[in-house]
Amino acid sequence: MNQKLKNEELNRLNVDEFKNAKKQTLVVVLDNVRSLNNVGSAFRTGDAFLIEEIILCGVTGTPPNKEIEKTALGATSTVKWTYFKTTLEAIAHLKQRNYTPFAVEQANKSIPLNEFTSYDERIALVFGNEVYGVDQEVIDVCVGVIEIPQAGTKHSLNISVSMGIVLWEIIRHSLANSSK
Amino acid sequence: MNQKLKNEELNRLNVDEFKNAKKQTLVVVLDNVRSLNNVGSAFRTGDAFLIEEIILCGVTGTPPNKEIEKTALGATSTVKWTYFKTTLEAIAHLKQRNYTPFAVEQANKSIPLNEFTSYDERIALVFGNEVYGVDQEVIDVCVGVIEIPQAGTKHSLNISVSMGIVLWEIIRHSLANSSK
Repeated sequence: MNQKLKNEELNRLNVDEFKNAKKQTLVVVLDNVRSLNNVGSAFRTGDAFLIEEIILCGVTGTPPNKEIEKTALGATSTVKWTYFKTTLEAIAHLKQRNYTPFAVEQANKSIPLNEFTSYDERIALVFGNEVYGVDQEVIDVCVGVIEIPQAGTKHSLNISVSMGIVLWEIIRHSLANSSK
Repeated sequence: MNQKLKNEELNRLNVDEFKNAKKQTLVVVLDNVRSLNNVGSAFRTGDAFLIEEIILCGVTGTPPNKEIEKTALGATSTVKWTYFKTTLEAIAHLKQRNYTPFAVEQANKSIPLNEFTSYDERIALVFGNEVYGVDQEVIDVCVGVIEIPQAGTKHSLNISVSMGIVLWEIIRHSLANSSK
């Protein structure tokens, strides 16, 4: 029989342990994301998967912010974040740090997420505005585009959900490699 | 160079095509989910991944509902849904239809999502209340518990994000098998 675990039985990290923990070499870039709920979700998901950093660009809201906190639930104190005025500057900065930037979008030469294999590098994942997506100028400076295969009627998944899925896919590979 | 695709270039299904399309033999069960945003997200994600049905239980809100629609963006017209007063009744009904129910939770004998292999069956995935999770009584009638490995400071991921991740993991396997 499965018994649900209580909070204290989960052995989650505290804030100091999080700061000192080895991170995934994975950076999330938010390109002019309008919804503070999506920003908060980036922090909460980034915390769960121990990512390196979140880079907030352009109109994307930054902590401290009550609306971000509603979804982040404190994860703005754990996941490191930086702000850049433009996403292009953020990408240039990441390339200097040897991160390979991929946009998550629908594009004509995109790599379906289930065929994405560039796992060993330092990866930066760019997620775009709720309506306009990742700016074409930003896509042009990325190394590639990752697309989540979708078969229904809607244009795309919600950004928070897309972030969860793409981060999981990379974490999953990292778990598979660490157990080899 | 990657060029972003316009809406009309995505060749998404229309409502009638969705109704007639072959679905994933996958049902999502919401066990007393409080947030209408999470309910809407279940529809939007369920639409993208062509799932069979969503079963809304207990206090979980049902369409038509403005708040659900804000997140579902019309997907309440495509994904089939049913309501049950209790999640236990929903699970009994699913077992009669030969669906194998799994709760998505943190539990002492849970299967880490990256080690989950029961892909060939008809699967029902139960997601629980934002604060209390899946009820222990409901876990007791499930065949197993799936847990998303998490390494940070927070108790768990948001339900919408968890749904995206677990559904993707099952869809990914189905894509891998269909290309064999």
